[in-house]
Amino acid sequence: MRARSADREARFASFVTFKITLAYDGTAFVGWQRQAAGASIQGLLEQALARFDQGEVIVFGAGRTDAGVHALGQVASFSLRRATDGPSLVRCLNASLPDTVRVLAADIVADRFHARFSARRKTYRYRLWNADVLSPFERPYVWHVHRPLDRDAMAAAATLIEGRHDFAAFRAAGGKTLSTEREVFSSRLVAGLVPLIVYEISGSGFLRCMVRNVVGTLVEIGRGRRPIEWMSEVLAGGDRRQAGPTAPARGLVLVSVEYDAGWLAPGR
Amino acid sequence: MRARSADREARFASFVTFKITLAYDGTAFVGWQRQAAGASIQGLLEQALARFDQGEVIVFGAGRTDAGVHALGQVASFSLRRATDGPSLVRCLNASLPDTVRVLAADIVADRFHARFSARRKTYRYRLWNADVLSPFERPYVWHVHRPLDRDAMAAAATLIEGRHDFAAFRAAGGKTLSTEREVFSSRLVAGLVPLIVYEISGSGFLRCMVRNVVGTLVEIGRGRRPIEWMSEVLAGGDRRQAGPTAPARGLVLVSVEYDAGWLAPGR
Repeated sequence: MRARSADREARFASFVTFKITLAYDGTAFVGWQRQAAGASIQGLLEQALARFDQGEVIVFGAGRTDAGVHALGQVASFSLRRATDGPSLVRCLNASLPDTVRVLAADIVADRFHARFSARRKTYRYRLWNADVLSPFERPYVWHVHRPLDRDAMAAAATLIEGRHDFAAFRAAGGKTLSTEREVFSSRLVAGLVPLIVYEISGSGFLRCMVRNVVGTLVEIGRGRRPIEWMSEVLAGGDRRQAGPTAPARGLVLVSVEYDAGWLAPGR
Repeated sequence: MRARSADREARFASFVTFKITLAYDGTAFVGWQRQAAGASIQGLLEQALARFDQGEVIVFGAGRTDAGVHALGQVASFSLRRATDGPSLVRCLNASLPDTVRVLAADIVADRFHARFSARRKTYRYRLWNADVLSPFERPYVWHVHRPLDRDAMAAAATLIEGRHDFAAFRAAGGKTLSTEREVFSSRLVAGLVPLIVYEISGSGFLRCMVRNVVGTLVEIGRGRRPIEWMSEVLAGGDRRQAGPTAPARGLVLVSVEYDAGWLAPGR
């Protein structure tokens, strides 16, 4: 028993945990998460890492972005047996991933680091194109809304969901998450060159489809079909059927995931 | 004879000349110009206009962008028999064009207007991505140069070709244009967020591949393989074989084409 236990310890002691930051154009993917069919970011990373590490590697993502959602700064974590360093891992992964997915950085972190559970703050951006004619360059990255939107009304409504609330009204239809309470640190319209309307939301975490449902609700208000205060009513009601429609995935991008500084460069 | 001549006059009097401004993502096209095989912007416009006008329509473009080159403000001109107005024509064309090509504006102009021959000034932009890892979102719109480039040297070299010169050194290999004299009003590196390097050039007109050959020469200087003054030597030498390599098409975009104000709203 002692021998086996020592073996196991030696085996685990040889694992090193990595945190990687990556950007991807979500257009052609089934989403972050591995699926029965279709290419996922998680699946591609796990394939590349299994070859590198000569054994199965499980990759955990900070945000499970849906099909068509993009990322500028997704974060993932996993453990490797094979000795390597950050820059070598970046080069190795980028050499085997399609060029629509790029690893921007890789760092060694404490063993207990988990991309999702250790995250302190996530920021998503949603981009709307509010004009008759849609730029061919923005096409895969915006929701094209033809009718004029009232930016001021949307900006006012956006801030009404800041704070700690039960966000059940904005969860995915059929979502089964037990706790629907989350903290939204900031929910704002940010400067966007006309005809772009750019919305950013930062929080402790998000329910599935939450950002897209918030944006769908903001657009109802921007179109003048509902007053600004409707945002608070929907939130307080807690009923998914009262909120606006789910905004299309293509306008959404996971901008960044933040962690406490202590995770990096552990005292090994 | 008199009757036939009057007929013809009536026929031509009924033509109206349009100027359209358009944007396109050049990635999937064989270029502006109609070709034996493959989709061209000119070809798509002519097909759409032939259906609209129930007869052949010839479209003239201001700049004959090569395969893979993009446009934010290409200009084209053509004449139509069928009565219409600018906004209706924009809607009609966008309804039949693929969403990688968008007509931004359409205006009635004087009959003698010609998108290419009436142009006073054209501006092209070339975008370089100077870092190890290429953003998935910039991939189709930049030349990815891994090795560090000296921005200051490139900026200094860029201005050396401003003015009226014989640009034979920067023409396309095998180009047969009779006159290779052109006037470059401005040739500058403009502000670009690191790791982007953005170059802009405005001139009376450009030889085929001229901008891409200028950029290829600038990159040789940016990499430190040639001194800044080499730019002037290449220009003065007039020998295509002395210039740098042709920069890839994907980094180039036709930004705008300018005309005298007098062409618009003719006193019909």
